Amino acid sequence: MNRFIVVGHKAVTSGDFKLDDMAGGAGRLDILLRCINSALFLSHGIRRDVEIFLILQGEPDPPRTIRINGSEVRYLNPDERSTGALVRNALVKKLDGDEVRSSPGIYISRRSFKQVIDELASISRLVYLKEDGQDVRQQELEGDLTFIVSDHQDLREDEEAELLAHSPLTVTLGPHSYHADHCITIMLNELDRRRWNEP
Amino acid sequence: MNRFIVVGHKAVTSGDFKLDDMAGGAGRLDILLRCINSALFLSHGIRRDVEIFLILQGEPDPPRTIRINGSEVRYLNPDERSTGALVRNALVKKLDGDEVRSSPGIYISRRSFKQVIDELASISRLVYLKEDGQDVRQQELEGDLTFIVSDHQDLREDEEAELLAHSPLTVTLGPHSYHADHCITIMLNELDRRRWNEP
Repeated sequence: MNRFIVVGHKAVTSGDFKLDDMAGGAGRLDILLRCINSALFLSHGIRRDVEIFLILQGEPDPPRTIRINGSEVRYLNPDERSTGALVRNALVKKLDGDEVRSSPGIYISRRSFKQVIDELASISRLVYLKEDGQDVRQQELEGDLTFIVSDHQDLREDEEAELLAHSPLTVTLGPHSYHADHCITIMLNELDRRRWNEP
Repeated sequence: MNRFIVVGHKAVTSGDFKLDDMAGGAGRLDILLRCINSALFLSHGIRRDVEIFLILQGEPDPPRTIRINGSEVRYLNPDERSTGALVRNALVKKLDGDEVRSSPGIYISRRSFKQVIDELASISRLVYLKEDGQDVRQQELEGDLTFIVSDHQDLREDEEAELLAHSPLTVTLGPHSYHADHCITIMLNELDRRRWNEP
């Protein structure tokens, strides 16, 4: 399984936002929606072996974690607006303790960034995508992998410390700083190619 | 200069569409909008050395070619909705013979796919992104390059014949068929890396 964790530092944590204003009033939710597209879409289908976690940290009630599992997800289209509607459906769910399903393959909980990485660290290798990391093409990448990317803001110092406590591999994709969704597209292509070239 | 030509086989050719319905009534214009994002955005700025041509072939008055030049473009944001508004502004322009500017760096004309590739072939190397091409990482890619990708439909036979008449390099990016915008992201990363590794 390939997993992606995307931190949305200002992303809205209620369903009370307009689909017409996802880049503004919804705290740059548009970035997270493009990450869903990059993580899950191939030209003729869904990547069934990918799971993406969106960590929403904006007002009014942070945190929320939305988990989308490629092997189960339905009703997903590539455009931002329809994906925004699915995310909004998740955000209106009433939450007690446990994770709740809002539509097939889409789940929401009150888990924090730290809780998500602590859980995944026990079953998956954490890989931090960061400009000053090692060149991805020179790294071994095998088994269950979880890639961590941030939205338009870097991880905060406390978030980075929580992640570094797990001694992740830290890799970079190229000489530029890329948008989070572009990082996911490039990373998945690199993984695709490795399986392509296997004997 | 790196250039991209994206063919939108059903993409609307009037400004009479709703920003709420770009994946439907506007003939999958959403695909072209994501291609603009992929071609022009880095995390902290615009790719000034990139130009993208969108060939719109839908109703009511095809063709239209929208050209966006990275060195001039302004008012561009990464989300689909705001980019859709810029494209709509271009589509409402009255056209006689020549290309017309609708906003800084954004131009529209009645040029067809064939006209655009015939023009560019004289100043640029054409590269056709296609599933059965040669592996991109094994190819020499230097000088002024123009990459041709199609939307959710393959190039028609007549379009492919017009392109192949220029003997383009034909390359593939990996073992899967990717969305057009993902192809652009992967291709630009490959080009970035080649310059990164130059002595």
